[in-house]
Amino acid sequence: MRQRRKVGILGATGMVGQRFIQLLENHPWFEVTWLAASDRSSGKPYGEAAKWKLDTPLPHNIANMLVSPAIPQAAPKIIFAALDADIAREMEPAFAAAGCAVISNSSAFRMHPDVPLVIPEVNADHLPLIEEQQWRKASGGYIVTNPNCSAIGLVLALKPIAERFGIEAIFVSTMQAVSGAGYPGVASLDILGNVVPFIKNEEEKLQEETLKLLGRWNGRAVDPLAAKLSAHCNRVPVEDGHMECVSIKLSKKASREELIEAWRDFSPLAGQALPSAPAQPVEFVSAEDRPQPRLDRMRGNGMASTVGRLRPCSLFDWKFTVLSHNTIRGAAGAAILNAEILEKLGKLDPGSDSVVAAKSNDPVAALA
Amino acid sequence: MRQRRKVGILGATGMVGQRFIQLLENHPWFEVTWLAASDRSSGKPYGEAAKWKLDTPLPHNIANMLVSPAIPQAAPKIIFAALDADIAREMEPAFAAAGCAVISNSSAFRMHPDVPLVIPEVNADHLPLIEEQQWRKASGGYIVTNPNCSAIGLVLALKPIAERFGIEAIFVSTMQAVSGAGYPGVASLDILGNVVPFIKNEEEKLQEETLKLLGRWNGRAVDPLAAKLSAHCNRVPVEDGHMECVSIKLSKKASREELIEAWRDFSPLAGQALPSAPAQPVEFVSAEDRPQPRLDRMRGNGMASTVGRLRPCSLFDWKFTVLSHNTIRGAAGAAILNAEILEKLGKLDPGSDSVVAAKSNDPVAALA
Amino acid sequence: MRQRRKVGILGATGMVGQRFIQLLENHPWFEVTWLAASDRSSGKPYGEAAKWKLDTPLPHNIANMLVSPAIPQAAPKIIFAALDADIAREMEPAFAAAGCAVISNSSAFRMHPDVPLVIPEVNADHLPLIEEQQWRKASGGYIVTNPNCSAIGLVLALKPIAERFGIEAIFVSTMQAVSGAGYPGVASLDILGNVVPFIKNEEEKLQEETLKLLGRWNGRAVDPLAAKLSAHCNRVPVEDGHMECVSIKLSKKASREELIEAWRDFSPLAGQALPSAPAQPVEFVSAEDRPQPRLDRMRGNGMASTVGRLRPCSLFDWKFTVLSHNTIRGAAGAAILNAEILEKLGKLDPGSDSVVAAKSNDPVAALA
Amino acid sequence: MRQRRKVGILGATGMVGQRFIQLLENHPWFEVTWLAASDRSSGKPYGEAAKWKLDTPLPHNIANMLVSPAIPQAAPKIIFAALDADIAREMEPAFAAAGCAVISNSSAFRMHPDVPLVIPEVNADHLPLIEEQQWRKASGGYIVTNPNCSAIGLVLALKPIAERFGIEAIFVSTMQAVSGAGYPGVASLDILGNVVPFIKNEEEKLQEETLKLLGRWNGRAVDPLAAKLSAHCNRVPVEDGHMECVSIKLSKKASREELIEAWRDFSPLAGQALPSAPAQPVEFVSAEDRPQPRLDRMRGNGMASTVGRLRPCSLFDWKFTVLSHNTIRGAAGAAILNAEILEKLGKLDPGSDSVVAAKSNDPVAALA
Repeated sequence: MRQRRKVGILGATGMVGQRFIQLLENHPWFEVTWLAASDRSSGKPYGEAAKWKLDTPLPHNIANMLVSPAIPQAAPKIIFAALDADIAREMEPAFAAAGCAVISNSSAFRMHPDVPLVIPEVNADHLPLIEEQQWRKASGGYIVTNPNCSAIGLVLALKPIAERFGIEAIFVSTMQAVSGAGYPGVASLDILGNVVPFIKNEEEKLQEETLKLLGRWNGRAVDPLAAKLSAHCNRVPVEDGHMECVSIKLSKKASREELIEAWRDFSPLAGQALPSAPAQPVEFVSAEDRPQPRLDRMRGNGMASTVGRLRPCSLFDWKFTVLSHNTIRGAAGAAILNAEILEKLGKLDPGSDSVVAAKSNDPVAALA
Repeated sequence: MRQRRKVGILGATGMVGQRFIQLLENHPWFEVTWLAASDRSSGKPYGEAAKWKLDTPLPHNIANMLVSPAIPQAAPKIIFAALDADIAREMEPAFAAAGCAVISNSSAFRMHPDVPLVIPEVNADHLPLIEEQQWRKASGGYIVTNPNCSAIGLVLALKPIAERFGIEAIFVSTMQAVSGAGYPGVASLDILGNVVPFIKNEEEKLQEETLKLLGRWNGRAVDPLAAKLSAHCNRVPVEDGHMECVSIKLSKKASREELIEAWRDFSPLAGQALPSAPAQPVEFVSAEDRPQPRLDRMRGNGMASTVGRLRPCSLFDWKFTVLSHNTIRGAAGAAILNAEILEKLGKLDPGSDSVVAAKSNDPVAALA
Repeated sequence: MRQRRKVGILGATGMVGQRFIQLLENHPWFEVTWLAASDRSSGKPYGEAAKWKLDTPLPHNIANMLVSPAIPQAAPKIIFAALDADIAREMEPAFAAAGCAVISNSSAFRMHPDVPLVIPEVNADHLPLIEEQQWRKASGGYIVTNPNCSAIGLVLALKPIAERFGIEAIFVSTMQAVSGAGYPGVASLDILGNVVPFIKNEEEKLQEETLKLLGRWNGRAVDPLAAKLSAHCNRVPVEDGHMECVSIKLSKKASREELIEAWRDFSPLAGQALPSAPAQPVEFVSAEDRPQPRLDRMRGNGMASTVGRLRPCSLFDWKFTVLSHNTIRGAAGAAILNAEILEKLGKLDPGSDSVVAAKSNDPVAALA
Repeated sequence: MRQRRKVGILGATGMVGQRFIQLLENHPWFEVTWLAASDRSSGKPYGEAAKWKLDTPLPHNIANMLVSPAIPQAAPKIIFAALDADIAREMEPAFAAAGCAVISNSSAFRMHPDVPLVIPEVNADHLPLIEEQQWRKASGGYIVTNPNCSAIGLVLALKPIAERFGIEAIFVSTMQAVSGAGYPGVASLDILGNVVPFIKNEEEKLQEETLKLLGRWNGRAVDPLAAKLSAHCNRVPVEDGHMECVSIKLSKKASREELIEAWRDFSPLAGQALPSAPAQPVEFVSAEDRPQPRLDRMRGNGMASTVGRLRPCSLFDWKFTVLSHNTIRGAAGAAILNAEILEKLGKLDPGSDSVVAAKSNDPVAALA
C-alpha cells in the first residue's frame, strides 16, 4: 500500500469534526496527523477535549493526539475544515494563504464566485475555479467547499434529471435531523414530540447552493442554473437523515420509467475508484413508504441519496421524496469525497500544477 | 339552562370516539346518552370496553354506561360517528335511513355529491345539500361530514385569502401527528426517530376535500374550487398536531399585511355563540419559528388554526406554515361544531323542516 | 374578592420562572407585579427578554412588564425564586436580609439546618424553622424551600405509609423528564431515542432531601428520618413528568389494601382551602400499566402524585411506581403551595409575627 | 473454507426472524436455506411475505426464497426459532421430536427443568441438560434456549462478580427499548414522550431466568442461584438497547477496582473462536454518563454488555448501570452464539453423540 497523505482537521471537536475522524479512521489515502480546535481545547489530548458522540469507539491514536492551536504553521498541507461560518470566514483564508488545500464544510465561502462548491458526481468540472483564487496564485493554497446538508441529497437526485430532461422549477419541503445543528444544537425541549418550522438561513442556502451546483462552468466562472426553487425547511425529531419532499417541472416531458432509469444510470465517477464514492449515488426504492431516515440513511455507507415515492404532481410534472445522511453525505463524507477527487486530479499537492478547463460533460474526464 | 339534547356516539371506543366523550363532557347543548362500538364491546361498561388514552379522566357516568349494539333502534336521533370508512359506508346510511342526523368524521361519504363536507367557518352555506339526500326526504335523517384532519387546518387558513384575493395554485407538504392514525395505529418502531413519507389515501383526500370545501354552492350542488393543489403527506414523531408547509399562487396580488389582516378579520361565526367555535379561527403568530405542535396546537381550545412564517415564495406568491390539532379541530371538535351550527339552524331535529338555499356570503345568515 | 398580594419572581425568564407566571396568572391571592432576571434581560419587556416555551399564551400584562434588576430595593416583600443554585446562594440571602419572604425552588439552602424544606401536605410543621434564621430575627425576612423535582412526588407517596407503618429502607430508580434540566438543558442529540443514566448531584439530592422531608421537628431542628435510601437517577426522552420505581421495607407489615387506604385517606390540608392544593395529593390508579407521564402527569392540575403498580417486592416488602409533574408539583407549583400555607399561617407578611412551634401531628393545626 | 451447515428459521418474518437473517448473512458456519412463517406467508417469496425493518438491505437470495410451511418434514436439522411463546409451545417440540436441534429464542421452555437456558459465556456447562430430553433420546433432537432480552445483559454483568465475590441480593430497574416487543408491538401513541411501567410477564421472567442462568449444574439438573432478586420493568421511547439500573449485595466485600477487574478479566470463551462471541463480553466504561443506548449498544457488534456508573450503594454494596442490545445480544445473536458453541461441542449434528457432563468451572472445557 502506498504512503497515506497527512491531513489535518480544523474544528475537530465538534460533531462534523468527529465524523471526519470516524470516516478517516481507516482511509486508504489519508491519515489524520493534526487536530485543531478552539483555544479552550488546545494542548489537551483529543480524548479529553472532545465529548465523543458517535456510536463507534474513538480511535486510540486520536484520543491521545494533542489538540493543536488553529494556526497553519505546523499544520499539514491538506486541511479538512469543520468550522462555524463566522470562524471559517477568518480562518480558512489564513490556511489557504499559507499554501493549504482547505477542503471546507463551512458555508462561509460556498457562494463566493471564485470558490468551487462541489459534489464530485455532480459538478467536478467546477473545480478549475480554484485557479481563480488569489491564494492559489500566491501560495498554491485554495478553498474548495461542499454544500449544505440539505442541498446535497437533493442535488444528487436532481442532477441526472436535469441532464436528461432539464429542470425549470423545484419545490422542496424538508424534514431535517437534529444532528444538522451540531452539538449541543437543538434543545430537547424544542424538538421532543415537536416540529420547528424554521432553521436560520437554511432556506436561502438550499435555494442558492442548489442552483450553483447545477450550474454550468463557462470556462471562467459558474453560471447558476436558471430555474426557480422555493424551499420550506423544518426540523423534526430525528437523529440523522434529512428527508425532502420535492416537486419538479421539467423542460422536456419524461415518463416514470425514464426518471428511474436516469437515476439508475447515474454513475459519473465509475472507474475512478474513489474510496468514499458510493457505487450507486442515487438509489431508487420502490416500496410505497420509503425512503425513511432510520432504514435508508446508511445506504452506500451513508453516501447515497435515496429516492422514492415517485408519482405525478398535479402542479408540476413529478413529485418524489429524497433522503440523505446529513452528517456523512451532507458534511464530512462530502468533504472527504471532494478531497479524493482532488487527489485523483493531482490537485491535493497544493502549488504543484494547475487545473485544466473542462472540455466535456464528463466531470472527471474534463479535469484529468 | 335549557335541556341538553341526547346524542349518541358510533365508534365510541376508538381515539376519535374518546375525543367526542372528552369534548362533550360538559357541553352546554349535548349530552352523551348512548355509546356504540363493535360487537366485541357491546354489553360491557364503557370503562371496560375502551382503553382510555386521553390525559383527562374518563367521566364516571360514561365509564359505567353500557356499550350498545351499533344499530339505530334504541339510538338517539343525533349521532356522532367516528367509524372507519369501511364500516361507515354501511352503517351511516342505516342510521340516516332510520331518521338520524349523522354527524360523521369518516371519509366514506365526504366526496358524495349529495353530502355536505363542512367547516362551519368556511362553507356552512353548503349545508342545504342535505335536502338532496334520499334519507332526508324519506325519514328526515341525513349525513353531514367534516373533512380529513389534514384538510381542515389548511382550509381554514386558505379561506380568508381565497375570499379576498382568489387562489389558483396550492402546494402543501404535511408533517402529521401519529394520533391521526388512531390506536394502535402507527407502530413505534416505524416512527421513533423517523419519518414515514406515506399515509394511505391521504394526499388524495387532502387534495379533493380542500377543493370541495373551498367550492361554491350553486343552489343545487357544490362546484369545487378551480385551483390546482399538490400534496405531499408525511408522518412524523409528534403525538398531536398536524403541521403543513404551504405555497400559494393568488389571483390578485396581496401584501403581507393584507394577508395577515385577512386572517385576523376572519370571524364568520361571530355573534352565533356556538360553544365550540374559537373566537379567532385563524391565529397568526409572528415569531419566526412558530407555529409548533407542542406549543400552539391548543390555541382556541384546540379549535384554532395557527399560521406563521409568512414570507414570499420564489415560485408562487406566498408561503407559510399552518398547524391545527388533528383530533380536536381535525376530528371530534369539527363534528361537534358541525352539530352546533346545525342546531343553530334548527336542523338537528331531523325531519322537522328544510334548509333554505344560501343567499349571501355569510354562511350562517345564508342558512338562517 | 379581597386584594391580591403583590409578588415578585426572581429568575423569571427560565423554565421554572415561566411556570410561576403561568400558574399565578389567575391566582386568587397573589399578583405578579415584579419580574427580575439576569442583567442581559433587565430593562426589556418580559415578552422580549424571555423565550416563552409553555403551551398557554404568555399573559399580555406580563409580556409588557419591564424586567427589573435582581435587587431587593424595589421588589415586593414576597419573592418566588427560580434561580440556579450558584446564583441563589448569593441572591436569596440578600432578599431575605432585606426583609423578603423568599419562597425558593433552588437547591442552594435546602439542606441548611435553619431553612425549612417543605411540602405542605408532608411537613408543614417544619416551618417554625424560619424563626431560627438570622434574617428573620433582623428584618423579618426568611427563606423557605421546596424539594428537588425528583424528591417531591416520592415523598408524597411515602409520607402516608411512613406515618402508618414506618419505613426503614427505600430503593428508587427514576426516569426523569427533560424539562427538569431547564432550557436549553438537555441537548436533543443526547436524548432522542436514548437514556442518560446520570444527572449531576441528583441522586445525592434525592437521597438527603427525602430523609429531611420525612424527618421530625423536635422543637428546634429537624431530625431526618433514620432510613436507608439508594437512588438511581436517569434522564429519558419525556417532556414533563418524572417516573420513579420504588421498593420499600416497612417497620410494620401492611397489606395491599392498607397501603392503598393510607394513600386514599391522605388529605392533611383538607379544610385549609389552599388554592393550589389538590383534593387528593396521592392518587392511586389500579390499571396495571399506569401511571404514565403523558396520561397522568396533569392529575390534580399537575399537583397530585400518582401511584400505581403496587405489588409485593421479593427483596423488601412492596414495590410501586410513582409519577409527578416535575415543573408543576416538582417546582413552581410546590413553591406556590408553600406560599399559600405561609399566607394561611399569617407568615407571608414578613416581620409581622412569629411562628408557633408544632404541637400535634396535623401540620397545619400545629402551626395555626 | 469448509462447507457451511444448512439452517432454517422458524418465525422468519418477525423482528427476531429478520435479525437472524441479518446476522447470518455472511456467517462462516451457517447458511440459511429454509424459512418458515405463518400460513399467511407460506408459499410467497420472503421479500413479499416480510416487511423488512432493518437498516441493512434484505439479502437478495433471501428475498427470493419461498417461505415454507412450518413443519419439520423438509426442514434442515438445525432450526433457529423466533416464535411467540404460545406457538413455540406446540411447534418447537414437534421439530425436536423430528430430530432437529431447536435453538430457541422463545420463553416457552426456558424454565423447563430439562431444557438448558444458556448464555455461552455464563453457563455453557448447563448444556448437558439436553441429554435429559425425551426427544434427544428418541430422535436426537433437542431444544436449547437463550434468555429473555432483559436477563441477558444483566447476567453477563453479574456472572464475573458472582464467581469472585458471590451475590446475595439484586435489585434491578429496567428501561427497555420498543424493539423488544416485536412488530408492530408498542403503539407509538403509548410511548412517544412517555414511559410505560409495565411489560407483561417481564419481571417474572427476568427474576427467574437470572437465577437459573447463574445456577449450578449438579450433574443432572440446574440448581438456581440462591439469591433474592426484585425487578421493575419499564418501556421507554428507545428503538434498541435495554438499560438496567442494578444494586447488588455481595457475599464477600469487593472494592471498585476488584469489580472492574472481574469484568475486564471475564473472557470464558477465549480461544474458542466462536464467530459471534465478542472479545470482551462485558465492557466497563468509566465516563460518568455512560452507558447510553444510542452510543453503546453496538459494542462488540451488539454482543457485548456494557457496564458503567459503578458506585457504592447505600442499601446494598454497589450499584451500576448495564446496557445490552436487546435484539442482537438479547435475541437472535444469543441464539446464534448458542448454536456456535453447540457446533464447537459437536452437538449440532443431532443424534450423533452425547454431551459429556461438566467437570470443571470452565464451561467450554467442561463440555469439550
